[in-house]
Order: sequence, then C-alpha cells, then structure tokens
Amino acid sequence: VIATFDGSSVNLGREGKVLYDQSGFGRPGAGGLTLSPEEALYLLHRNKIEIEGYTFDSFLAECAASPGFFRCYLVYRDIRERGYVIQPGPHDFRVYRRGQRPATGQSHYVLRVLPERELIRFEAIVGDVRSALHMRKHYVLAVVDDEDELTYYEVKLPRLEKAADCAGAGIIDAKVFGTTVIAEHDAAAALEQAWFGTRLDAERLMLSPTETVFLAGRGMLRCGGGPASLDTYIEASMASDADLRAKLAAYTHLRDLGYIPRTGYKFGHHFRVYSGKSTHSEMLVHALDADAGMPMSVISRSVRLAHSVRKKMLFACTHENTVCYIEFARIKL
Amino acid sequence: VIATFDGSSVNLGREGKVLYDQSGFGRPGAGGLTLSPEEALYLLHRNKIEIEGYTFDSFLAECAASPGFFRCYLVYRDIRERGYVIQPGPHDFRVYRRGQRPATGQSHYVLRVLPERELIRFEAIVGDVRSALHMRKHYVLAVVDDEDELTYYEVKLPRLEKAADCAGAGIIDAKVFGTTVIAEHDAAAALEQAWFGTRLDAERLMLSPTETVFLAGRGMLRCGGGPASLDTYIEASMASDADLRAKLAAYTHLRDLGYIPRTGYKFGHHFRVYSGKSTHSEMLVHALDADAGMPMSVISRSVRLAHSVRKKMLFACTHENTVCYIEFARIKL
Repeated sequence: VIATFDGSSVNLGREGKVLYDQSGFGRPGAGGLTLSPEEALYLLHRNKIEIEGYTFDSFLAECAASPGFFRCYLVYRDIRERGYVIQPGPHDFRVYRRGQRPATGQSHYVLRVLPERELIRFEAIVGDVRSALHMRKHYVLAVVDDEDELTYYEVKLPRLEKAADCAGAGIIDAKVFGTTVIAEHDAAAALEQAWFGTRLDAERLMLSPTETVFLAGRGMLRCGGGPASLDTYIEASMASDADLRAKLAAYTHLRDLGYIPRTGYKFGHHFRVYSGKSTHSEMLVHALDADAGMPMSVISRSVRLAHSVRKKMLFACTHENTVCYIEFARIKL
Repeated sequence: VIATFDGSSVNLGREGKVLYDQSGFGRPGAGGLTLSPEEALYLLHRNKIEIEGYTFDSFLAECAASPGFFRCYLVYRDIRERGYVIQPGPHDFRVYRRGQRPATGQSHYVLRVLPERELIRFEAIVGDVRSALHMRKHYVLAVVDDEDELTYYEVKLPRLEKAADCAGAGIIDAKVFGTTVIAEHDAAAALEQAWFGTRLDAERLMLSPTETVFLAGRGMLRCGGGPASLDTYIEASMASDADLRAKLAAYTHLRDLGYIPRTGYKFGHHFRVYSGKSTHSEMLVHALDADAGMPMSVISRSVRLAHSVRKKMLFACTHENTVCYIEFARIKL
C-alpha cells in the first residue's frame, strides 16, 4: 500500500481500510485512512506500507524532530508487538483488550509515555487517574529509560477497607524525658497491647514522635509530673521533622481504619503497615503533601523495593484533612 | 558500688576499678573510676551500681536534657548486650573486638550515632572514614529510627580493581535523530560487541545520552550526514539532565577499569554495573557531586534495595575529575 505524508499525518487511500478493519490501525475518513506518525513508522518498519518519497530513516528523521516522538514510537511498537491494538490519544495512547479493536469494543487502558526523569506531580496524577476511572479505564504509565528500555506501571487509587476497629488503650500516663516519651508498668502494657511503642525494658516502653502526637491529639496521653512538658516535646518534634504533619495525617487515617502503621525506616519509607490479618506487613506507605512531586526514577526505586519485600507501594497524599492513597504497581502487559 | 554524680560525669571510688579491669567500663584515674552518663545509666539499669540521690528515672531525666543522649544510650546498651566492650569517644563510641577491652587491645570500630533523618554529607563522611582507616579501624553508622530500633551500616571506600581492558569499538558512524542516536549495520554490531547501546531492530542500535557523550568525548563517534548535529544533541542532553555530568564521570571511570555500566533505572539508581565475570550485575552505582547530601533514610532505601537484589550499593562521588566510591553495607554486629 502506498501512502502520502503531508508533514503531519500519513494518508492511505481506501485500500488502507483493511488495516483498520483487521488490525485497528489509523482513523478511517472520507478520504481513506489517516495514520499518526507512530503508526506509519511502525507499518513502514513492518513493510506493510510505503511512503512516497521516504525511506524508514528519512521518515524517522522527519518525525524525530518533534520532542517525545521517539519515546512514543518505542512504546507504540512494544504494545503492538505484545499483540494489542493501540490508538493515539488522549494522552498519549489508548490500548484495547487483547483481541479487541476500535470496531469491536472500548479501549481498556489509557497510557501515558514519559522519560525516566519526568517529575510526577501527585495532585496532577490523581486527577488523571480519576478521569481514566470515570471512563472505566485503567491508567498506565509507560516509562522509557535512558537506554530505551520500557517499564509499565499501573497507577491505582485504592480505597482501604476497614481492617478492624481502632484499638483503644484508654488514657495513658507517660513521662517526657527530653526527646523521648516513656510509659511504665500497666500503661506500657496497655500501649503494647494496642500496638504502640517499643520496649526499653521490662517496665518501660518508648513512644515515637508520631505515636505521641497522635495519642496526645486524641486526648489519650497524660504527661504530668515528668521532667519535661508534652507541649515542648511536640513543638520540638514538629520543628525537627518537616514530614511529621503529613506522616500524622496518614498515621491517623490508617489507625482509624484499624491498620497498624509502624516505622518503615528499614525499607526507607515512612511506614510499614499491618492489617492485623498476618504477621507480615502488606504495605509500605510514604506520606506526602498533595502538591509534592517526585522524579519517576525515585518512584521506580520505591516500587522495586516494595515488590522485592512483597508489599504494595502506596503514597499517602494529604490535602487539608483528607488522605488519598496512590499505588504504583509494576505490570507486565 | 555507690557512685556520685557531679552533673557531668559519674565517679566511682577505687572499688569501681574491677568494672574497668573485668569489663572495660569507665576511665581509671587518681580518684577512682569515671563513667560517662551512658555507662552509668547502663550500670544502673543492670543494678551494678547505685548513684547517690538518684533513681533510674531521675538520673535518666537529668541526662536526657542533653540532645542525642538517649540515642547514644540505646546504642551503648545494644552493643554491650551483644557482648562487646564499648567506650565513649571520639564520635561517638569506640567498640572493641569480641573478648577485647581497653586493657588488652585496640578498639576495632569507630561508631557514629545518628537519627534516621540526619543529612549525610558525602564529602564529610569520606573524610571521617579516611580518618578511621588511618587508625586501622572500621567506620560504622548506628542509626536510631523514630521507633528507637537500631540499624548498623559499615561505610567503606572500596578501591575498584581493574576488571578487564577497556573494550574499544573503533571509530563508529552514527546518526542523530532528534533526541536519539542510532548506529546501523556493522557499526551497530561493533557497539553491541563492546556492550554499548540497545537494539532498535536487526539493523539499528540506539545509544543512550551517557554512552553517546562518552564515545564522542573519546573521539570514537562520527555523526556526519545525519538529520541533526551531535553538538546540538549533547547540548540538549546536558540541559535536560542535571545529573549527566556526574553520571559521565562515574561512567568513564568504570569503563576505564573495564566494567560495563548499564542503566539502573529499574533499580532506581543510575547504573547497574557488570564486571564481565558473571551475567549478574554486582553493583548499583549512583553518581553524585562530592558536595551532595542525602538523608540517612533515603540511603537506607538504596541499601535495602541493593541487598534485596544481591548487589553492592555504591555512591560515586565526583570531585573535579576524581571519582571516589562510598559503599554502605548493612551489618549485624
């Protein structure tokens, strides 16, 4: 089939229609079939079409002048070679279920193509995923790294189910020792029962800053008669940890759903989270302000780490008092 | 044994000497044995001493007023309970080999205590590790996380051995297509042979920005007759990747030693590095300027990830044209 290129799209005559009908290439119109540059380059590569006046290299040179074209082409080709029908738009592609094409059904994924250094703005991506979900589509990021290898991530907005009733520990007496809060004897045992704190010794239990501020905010902590005041401790904790406000929002939300968040330091994230159904923590949660951003390569590190310890990787984005969870899961299409 | 506390150190009479001789507690002097607050609190906790006028809680309250005391106490106690003799100084502790103490030998580790959010300045830590090595001691970081759990890391300055002769590929012809550099036919095969590039198809091979700039800098790349110029490509690559200069320094250094650095995107770091002795990449390398800093919690994420895929975690710090590797390895003392 011979095609013509007008500088922005490639046009096949009516004989191109079979490519649409059988394999979902292009958009059919009055004048025949129109192909995007990615579609045309792919069909050229597969020797399915010829473009008047162009070789593969000269057509590639023409297209490659527009930024991001080559990345999109690599993704387009990869998805095609995996046996899916893929169409351009809205950003950057729509992918059909295996065996489906525009004539037979709706697309299943919306797919955004990005380079490894792209800054992911959490607020923006939540909006994009929501739009996709409204159209009952899955939202997938296709990341093209510097060596042109592809990695796919499905981005989800999981709604955490209530795991249990929030464990209460009554009102607890504790003492502030400088930068440490310690509960003793029965108070220590009650806290431990509700999965708070770390044992210092048989009589004493230490609370983390997050736990302390959470319990204090709930009116569950009474620190009288200690050497330092609770207010001073909370002020100092807030001042020394810029993330504490976001961590508290996520911690409180998780606790209210009956989950048990514990420090995730050994995994390099804010929390490992237990649902109480198993001794294994099922999630890593990192708390952020909703307007935060992170390069895709840093998110990749988190996702790889979480998967290697069989946990889900969730970012908890807090905006005023609401918490929204964003899950990045590597997928093989 | 009854001790007295003068507000900064704890003094035992001559009868305290046995604690030094047998177990390496304190510093003996003319007036008897002097204990640091950590040593005294530990001995109080173990009921080995009493301090006139103080209970455990009131002595702890006194000490906890000085910042960092509680973290140091937790580390001191942990090391003691693992059966090592530990002495204060120079920063923050010296630890003896198992079975050794001040009277019988030299300390083996210098140990620095830090909270999980501490910013690690690479230039400074290289200096600290070098000082320790000059004294023939190992340098260990003891990190106390928000829930008072301890993690130990040995910090090393590995000298990479020459792995092989640097593979050459002759002078290669390639073409610049916008943001992509492509070599064809024999040139593609020669590059692939020397472990450069990613295949686009049977005839074509794509080079990454790092590979391209490296090869161009060595005069090994000739890009004539392509649709875009190599200089424009290099300028655009430098502008779009703030890390490229540091990455190039590490890449060049590794290549010159005969290692094969490939993208580490899937592991969230700049390079996975092959020594050529195995099909498994043995190291993750992240390139940084020497004056860079990173919170310990972020380093923890990298170390955990690297260990989970059985690789060493190396930071390559470049200062002018020298590259220094810093390895963080989690250890169990």
